[in-house]
Amino acid sequence: MTIVITAFERSPDGGKGLARDTRVRWALEEVGQPYEVRLVSFGAMKEPAHLALHPFGQIPTYEERDLGLFETGAIVFHIAERHTGLLPDDANARACAITWMFAALNTVEPPILELVTARIFESDKSWSAQRMPLVEDRVRNRLGQLSRRLGDAEWLDGAFSAGDLMMVSVLLRLRASGLLDEYPNLSAYVARGEARPAYKRAYDAQLAVNKPTAG
Amino acid sequence: MTIVITAFERSPDGGKGLARDTRVRWALEEVGQPYEVRLVSFGAMKEPAHLALHPFGQIPTYEERDLGLFETGAIVFHIAERHTGLLPDDANARACAITWMFAALNTVEPPILELVTARIFESDKSWSAQRMPLVEDRVRNRLGQLSRRLGDAEWLDGAFSAGDLMMVSVLLRLRASGLLDEYPNLSAYVARGEARPAYKRAYDAQLAVNKPTAG
Repeated sequence: MTIVITAFERSPDGGKGLARDTRVRWALEEVGQPYEVRLVSFGAMKEPAHLALHPFGQIPTYEERDLGLFETGAIVFHIAERHTGLLPDDANARACAITWMFAALNTVEPPILELVTARIFESDKSWSAQRMPLVEDRVRNRLGQLSRRLGDAEWLDGAFSAGDLMMVSVLLRLRASGLLDEYPNLSAYVARGEARPAYKRAYDAQLAVNKPTAG
Repeated sequence: MTIVITAFERSPDGGKGLARDTRVRWALEEVGQPYEVRLVSFGAMKEPAHLALHPFGQIPTYEERDLGLFETGAIVFHIAERHTGLLPDDANARACAITWMFAALNTVEPPILELVTARIFESDKSWSAQRMPLVEDRVRNRLGQLSRRLGDAEWLDGAFSAGDLMMVSVLLRLRASGLLDEYPNLSAYVARGEARPAYKRAYDAQLAVNKPTAG
């Protein structure tokens, strides 16, 4: 019955909560499910034992009895489907919440991933400074559309759902870039997500792993 | 009861089946559900009526009675959940098929989108030729991992599922790049997808819209 997830032995972000295990921890905290964490080194992530569980050699994974899952979206959906608190009961509202999960991961996150890649892996290239405005504008295009849809609503579609959990998590990756600050309603939306007790517990749990004093 | 989806009035790919309505058509064909198509111009996609249905101003959308959905992954999942043929009955196998849907959209497609963006929107930039090998290697990294997981299996996890539908659809975007040919088992996997009668019907239906002779 025990749920076991994997996380970085040492997260590249030093505990800012941007590693994807935070999304899974948050979902488990929202539905009140206890879990254990198995820490994995960068080396071990590329070894056969971990690749058998995660073909792309990443974290997080999710194990429960004889079920082994990878891919954050799938894990969060699995948690949301089996426990109360992350998906509405009404069938149409549920389909809309799931839509926002996919929108976060396949429409909003790809240009953000491109920005992160440009900053981390191409900052030393000759084209970096000249290309960055193009990449940032692709992110702004999505943020503008999302900002117009959200308006002054609290969450994307009625009550907080797995769709909001995923969208807030995706937008959090933008904080360091300053782009989020250009859209006050999105900044406030992200702050509402971070203020949820379940998010705070998830954040603190991943931080405890990544503190310099931690084993 | 009628299902209505949207598609490009004129697809940018000229009918190669890469516009995302093909994924939804394919899913509907697999489960044997008839559907109608409303064609949308590039102008209309950015107007309030369409934005009310799709906040990011894209196609496809899905309408059925009082339900309106956007985002291809969510639409295909909705179809798979409500009809027989795209998700296994066994709970664990179902969770694995859903995992492959998310993996296709959030792990395999983002570097492919980056490649497509580089080819379409940055080909005239001074850095294009120098940067392209980096972008291609990010795609190869994912293809290599996927190829190793697939091995000589027919589909990703047992019988054909919505996970395969999505993965094949994502990989199809690579055909013009030649990268897919470097992984014979992935090429064969994509060909098996294209050989399915439901895919052929979906492909033919979108081609009929985009033929020069079509209205």
